[in-house]
Amino acid sequence: MFTPRTPRIVAARRLQRRRDRDQTGRFLAEGPQAVREALAADAVLELFATPAAIERYPDLAAQAPELSPVTDDALAALAETVQPQGLVAICEQNDVSIGEALAKEPRLVAVVAEIRDPGNAGTVLRTADAAGAGAVIFAGDAVDPYNGKCVRSSAGSLFHVDVVRSPLSVVDLLQDNGLQVLATSGTGEDDVDSLLDGGHLAPRTAWLFGSEAHGLPADLLSSADRRVRVPIYGGAESLNLAAAAAVCLYASARAQR
Amino acid sequence: MFTPRTPRIVAARRLQRRRDRDQTGRFLAEGPQAVREALAADAVLELFATPAAIERYPDLAAQAPELSPVTDDALAALAETVQPQGLVAICEQNDVSIGEALAKEPRLVAVVAEIRDPGNAGTVLRTADAAGAGAVIFAGDAVDPYNGKCVRSSAGSLFHVDVVRSPLSVVDLLQDNGLQVLATSGTGEDDVDSLLDGGHLAPRTAWLFGSEAHGLPADLLSSADRRVRVPIYGGAESLNLAAAAAVCLYASARAQR
Repeated sequence: MFTPRTPRIVAARRLQRRRDRDQTGRFLAEGPQAVREALAADAVLELFATPAAIERYPDLAAQAPELSPVTDDALAALAETVQPQGLVAICEQNDVSIGEALAKEPRLVAVVAEIRDPGNAGTVLRTADAAGAGAVIFAGDAVDPYNGKCVRSSAGSLFHVDVVRSPLSVVDLLQDNGLQVLATSGTGEDDVDSLLDGGHLAPRTAWLFGSEAHGLPADLLSSADRRVRVPIYGGAESLNLAAAAAVCLYASARAQR
Repeated sequence: MFTPRTPRIVAARRLQRRRDRDQTGRFLAEGPQAVREALAADAVLELFATPAAIERYPDLAAQAPELSPVTDDALAALAETVQPQGLVAICEQNDVSIGEALAKEPRLVAVVAEIRDPGNAGTVLRTADAAGAGAVIFAGDAVDPYNGKCVRSSAGSLFHVDVVRSPLSVVDLLQDNGLQVLATSGTGEDDVDSLLDGGHLAPRTAWLFGSEAHGLPADLLSSADRRVRVPIYGGAESLNLAAAAAVCLYASARAQR
């Protein structure tokens, strides 16, 4: 049984660092939900599991291409959360090029532009998946989609949609693909409800989301087809990113039903 | 200038604990945004500020009923975040009884039932405020609305809407007040888009939200007028709480415009 000092555990643990993820093209997924989705997506290379977890999740253990029993200590060394329930998998990174993603002509796309908070990016990924988006693009200096917290916040959605890493200048490519590009902005000239009422959300759409602190870069705002705000009816200054993305993506989902 | 050992700093710091907040009816708000909203709501009793912060935010310093210059160390002892930008205020808790909140006949109400995660509760509070809700009810064994992380996640909305703490059994009171009660549930018989299409979201509405892990308690689900799901169009199993609340509350806001 592998211990924290077993070379393969030591090597796997390095995947908690971005540099090692980038070099190897691998990442870690922890907990039964993420592992189940990773197995379904054929992304798992090796599953580390405590004996108790193998007993509790025999279906997951049986599906793993390689199963390595580990001590509780070894599992704790691999996991970033307190309760990974005995399972951590080494997975293959599965992102695709922007060309590959757009060739499928997705009806709905979310772009997280320079969003550095992994929890926010992962939540937008999960929400985009729920709303039926085909691709989520991490543009510019955005967080690594395979960051542990991003993987956890995505709740499996990392394995459901096309994940793309691209330079910041994506607007032209999206427009050339026939997508209208809507940039979210607290001071946008259009509001999302009026666009929905006017039938403007039915066409294929890419939504651009910026960081809560800085918003979208000026050139993305100016090159988008519209700048769109979520209306604020009460005293709040703004919505948080996850909430704003949910309102926008679900407005599109509603229009595209 | 107050240092970390000054008795008033030691006493104020105890407000980081729920027991002391409950006993004193006070709480801490940190950072310029929260302090500005607290001042506007007349909730500030004493403002602690570093000399640099007083220079940077003279308007806030001028409005404080009592201003106490503190050392950087004293400020750090009071603050729960790394960058409170030199400002922490002792505020008076401002929650109202459910009777008082309902007497104003709010058109939109959010109920967080047994939600223990302060970030989630604070985000729902912020989203409810943005969507135009008049009251947010913390029902049953929910997090303390004056928990530091909840205050920060609410981004000032704690000071904009009626905050209520109540027992879990609120449905009768809401219905007696003329509100329809909609319970969110991944397996609800109605979906939010169909309700919106059918005109069912125009009446005065209270939305019930449960924790992401456990959902709503069975008796709240059964006593609500409808159980409502947010439709999932992609592969995600569910939305996170903040995203689901945003979709539901903004659907009501749209219907009630």
